[in-house]
Amino acid sequence: MTRHYNFCAGPAALPVAVLERAREELLDYQGRGLSVMEMSHRSDEFIAIAERAEADFRHLLGVPDNYRVLFLQGGASLQFAMLPMNLLGQGGRGNFIQTGIWGKKALNEAKHLGFDCHVVASSESNGHTAVPAQDELRVSADAAYLHYTSNETIGGLEFDYTPQIQRADGAHVPLVCDMSSNILSGPIDVSEFGVIYAGAQKNIGPAGLTLVVVRDDLLGKAQANIPSLFDYQMLADAGSMVNTPPTYAWYLAGLVFQWLKDDIGGLAAMDAINQRKADKLYAAIDASELYSNPIANANRSRMNVPFVLADSALDKAFLQQADAAGLLNLKGHRSVGGMRASLYNAVPESAVDALIAFMADFEKTRG
Amino acid sequence: MTRHYNFCAGPAALPVAVLERAREELLDYQGRGLSVMEMSHRSDEFIAIAERAEADFRHLLGVPDNYRVLFLQGGASLQFAMLPMNLLGQGGRGNFIQTGIWGKKALNEAKHLGFDCHVVASSESNGHTAVPAQDELRVSADAAYLHYTSNETIGGLEFDYTPQIQRADGAHVPLVCDMSSNILSGPIDVSEFGVIYAGAQKNIGPAGLTLVVVRDDLLGKAQANIPSLFDYQMLADAGSMVNTPPTYAWYLAGLVFQWLKDDIGGLAAMDAINQRKADKLYAAIDASELYSNPIANANRSRMNVPFVLADSALDKAFLQQADAAGLLNLKGHRSVGGMRASLYNAVPESAVDALIAFMADFEKTRG
Repeated sequence: MTRHYNFCAGPAALPVAVLERAREELLDYQGRGLSVMEMSHRSDEFIAIAERAEADFRHLLGVPDNYRVLFLQGGASLQFAMLPMNLLGQGGRGNFIQTGIWGKKALNEAKHLGFDCHVVASSESNGHTAVPAQDELRVSADAAYLHYTSNETIGGLEFDYTPQIQRADGAHVPLVCDMSSNILSGPIDVSEFGVIYAGAQKNIGPAGLTLVVVRDDLLGKAQANIPSLFDYQMLADAGSMVNTPPTYAWYLAGLVFQWLKDDIGGLAAMDAINQRKADKLYAAIDASELYSNPIANANRSRMNVPFVLADSALDKAFLQQADAAGLLNLKGHRSVGGMRASLYNAVPESAVDALIAFMADFEKTRG
Repeated sequence: MTRHYNFCAGPAALPVAVLERAREELLDYQGRGLSVMEMSHRSDEFIAIAERAEADFRHLLGVPDNYRVLFLQGGASLQFAMLPMNLLGQGGRGNFIQTGIWGKKALNEAKHLGFDCHVVASSESNGHTAVPAQDELRVSADAAYLHYTSNETIGGLEFDYTPQIQRADGAHVPLVCDMSSNILSGPIDVSEFGVIYAGAQKNIGPAGLTLVVVRDDLLGKAQANIPSLFDYQMLADAGSMVNTPPTYAWYLAGLVFQWLKDDIGGLAAMDAINQRKADKLYAAIDASELYSNPIANANRSRMNVPFVLADSALDKAFLQQADAAGLLNLKGHRSVGGMRASLYNAVPESAVDALIAFMADFEKTRG
C-alpha cells in the first residue's frame, strides 16, 4: 500500500487512523454483522453513532447548550440559499463582508433569490490580500445578520479576529460565518456567533455532509413556503432526520472528532500544530527568490497557502516533479492559477517538511 | 468477521463484493497513494470514476442519449421540492397518482410550496392494496407532468405497468417517477419517462446520493430565482459539479453498477433473481396460518414485503429471535407496524431461504 502526502483543498486528506478504523469496520461494525452504510438511520446502532459524533463535536468546539448542531447535505453552497431563506423571513437585510470568491458566492446567491443585500466592507481594493479592519464594519440599520467567510480557501485569506457588531440602534447583530475551510483548526468562542456552517470535506470528513451550528433564537424565523428540507427549525426538531441523512459521512465525521480528541488532544493542541506547519511554510516562501505569497502577514491562512513561482513557465515542471515525489494536488485553483498547499488538520507536519525540502531543491536546480 | 442477512428498507444491504472492493481500496486507490474520499472532484482520477459510473448506469438501464443523468444530494425528499420548481416554471399543473405514504409526501411538498396540484387517482379507498388501473387515470387539461411512485417502500405496493398518458387535447404528458425503492431491480424503458429519480440507499449505494434522470426537453423550464443548486439545467451543464458532489457515494454507486453488470449479468438477470426471491417469500406467507400480506397479487412489491402476524403479541418474540438468528431489520415501518422484509438487489436468495425457514420454524413452535 502507498500513501502519499495530499495537499488537496477539498475533498481533502483524512487522518490515516480514521481511514484504518473505517477499513477495519467496513463489512462488520463491531460484530453486528453489517456495515454502517447498511444500517437504518433509525436503528439503535446508528443513533448511538450519530449522538456520539454530535457530543464529541460539541465537546471539541465548546458548543453551548442553546445551539443546535445540524448534520445536513448539499454543501456550504446550499447554505448560501438556506441562510437568507431561514433568517430573513421576518424582515431585515443580510449584510456581507467580502474577502474573496466564496464570500461573493454567498452574497450572489442571496441576491439571486431576490433578497436585497448590503455589503459592509470588501477587500477587493487591496486584491483580497488583507481583511477589512473591525472599525470599517458598519452594518445597515436593518441588518438581520452579518455574514463573512472566516477563511477564503482559494485566496488563502483568513480573518485574524472575530467581528463584533452592533447596529446604530445598539441591537446585537447575529454573526453568520462560513467556516468550511478552517473549522476545528483551533479553538473558537461559539457564543460569539449566530450561525456557523461548514462543508465537511476539509476538516470534518468526506464530501456530502454539511454541519450547521445555529443558535436557538434564530430558529423559527424562516420564510413561509420554503422547501421543508430547508427549514432549520424542522431539521432541528427532527434531529437532522427529516429524511435519511448521509449516514456513512456522519459516521466518518465522528471518527475524525474522536481522532481530534483522543489522538491530537483537542483543538488547542491542533491549533499549535497548525500554526507551526503554516509558519514554517510561509518562512520558506519568504526566504526564497522563486516563491511568493501576497497576503498580509496577519491574514495569511493557516489552512490554504497559495504561492506563485517567479517564472510561471516553471509551473508545469514543479507540479510534475512534486507529484512524482509523492506531493499531490499542489495546483492552484483554476480561477487563480499558481500553486496552493492546503494544510488541513489531517496533513501531518512531516508533509510540510517534505514539501519545504522539495521546494528548496526545486529552486536550487531549476529556479 | 460476521456478516448477517440484512432486510433493512434503507439504508439497505450492499453487495459483499462491493464492500470488499471498497475496503481494499480505502487507503490507496489503485496505487495513487490516497483514498477516493481524499481526491479532488475535479482530478483526473475522480472524473474517470464519475464518468465510468454514469456510463455503466446508462448501459444497465439503457438510458437514451437525450436524457441527462444527475448525481445529486438531498435524497428523494428534496426532489419533492425540486421537481415542481423545475417543471412548473412555464405554467401547467402537477398531476399525482396516490398509492401510499411516499406519493403523498411528494404531493404535500408541492402543495406546501404553493403549487396547485391535481390528484389523478388514489388507492386510498382500497387501503393502498391495489394500484389504480390505467383507464382510471385522467389527467387535468393543464397537466405539466404526471407523478407517481413505482414502488411504495412502506406499503409494499408496486406498479405492474407504466402509465401511458395523454391530455384531452392529445398532448403527451411527461411521466415523473419516484423509483427510489425499485430502480435497477429489472429492465425498464426509460424513453417512457420524462424524469426518473431515486435516493441511492436501496439499490444504488449509500445514503447521501440521489440520481435524477431527466429528458433534455424538460431542462430550462425552472421558475426564476430558485436556489441555484435546484436548477436541473445548471446541474446538467456542470456535470453535477456546481459544487463538490458526494464523491465517495458516487464511487460506491459505480462499484454497485459494475457488480450488476459483471457479477449479476445485467438487469434481466437481476429481474429473474428478484422475482424468484419475492415469489418464494409470498408463497410461504400465503401457505401459512400465522403470516399474511394484504396486497393484490399483481401489485405485490418484489422489493418490500410487509407482513403481519395473526397474533401481534408474538411480534416482539419474532423480531428478537430473528435478530438472534442473524436475520436483521425485519421490523415494519413505525407508521404501520408489523414486519417488513426488504429484498433489494444486494439481498441474496440465501437470505430469503433462511428467512422462510425461520418463519416456518417460528410458526411451528410459537404460532
